[in-house]
Formats: sequence, C-alpha cells, structure tokens
Amino acid sequence: MNISEETFLINFGIHVRQLREKKGISQKDLANDCGITKSQISRIEVAKINTSVKTLVKIANALDVEPKELFDFSIK
Amino acid sequence: MNISEETFLINFGIHVRQLREKKGISQKDLANDCGITKSQISRIEVAKINTSVKTLVKIANALDVEPKELFDFSIK
Repeated sequence: MNISEETFLINFGIHVRQLREKKGISQKDLANDCGITKSQISRIEVAKINTSVKTLVKIANALDVEPKELFDFSIK
Repeated sequence: MNISEETFLINFGIHVRQLREKKGISQKDLANDCGITKSQISRIEVAKINTSVKTLVKIANALDVEPKELFDFSIK
C-alpha cells in the first residue's frame, strides 16, 4: 500500500469536519468537549496539524464514534 | 463514548505488534520500511509513544493494510 501521508491528512480533516457537521457541533463546541483549542480543531480539519492518537480518541469520544470511524473514508 | 486514551494506546500497540507478527516482520524491518527507528516501533507497541497520524500511515503502508485497520481492534 502506498498512501501519501499528506493526502491522508487532508482527507482525514475533511472527514472530521463532515462528522462534526453531521452532528451539528461547532468547532468551538467540539474543542471544548475534547479539552483542546478551537484553533487546533480548525487546523486538524484543514490538515495543518499532524495530530496524535490520543487527540483522535478525544475527538472520537466527543463525536460519540469509534476511533476507527475517524479513518473510515476513501482517499480522494 | 468514553474510551480512555491510555487504554486505547495500549490496545493499539498490542494490535500493531499482532499485525506485524502475522506478517512475519521484525521490529527492525518494519522500522526500516517506515523510515523510523526500531526503538520508535518498540515504544509504539508498548504504548510509550503517543504517535501521530502520519506515522500511522507509514506503518499501514509498511504492513500493507488500510490505516483504519490499525484501529480495528476491541478494547480489552
């Protein structure tokens, strides 16, 4: 398999934003629920941060999805 | 959902080791394929590192699995 890390990060960010919007949660609310900053959420969504596994778990918990669902998208 | 970040990291590390061993790859070989150090791989497998999304993609590529498969395990 040869997935580009950058392409994955971009698609991952789009997927997080789609999950968040589907739940009707603002970046600020998601950030508060995760205990991280709004700017961190916004930079994750536009692939400006190479975030960590622990932050992924925080986001999954806040969006009430399994962590693996955060990676359940097809690369465009 | 309220998954503990630490418990997730521990289970994730065990899962990476199981995937690696199933492929018959040593930590050293996996590290070389990923372009990271053997000690990084070993610390990921024992949850001593909170690794990043890009490293996850490197590991998935090297193990020839989809990144979401790295999170496809049940929390014990």
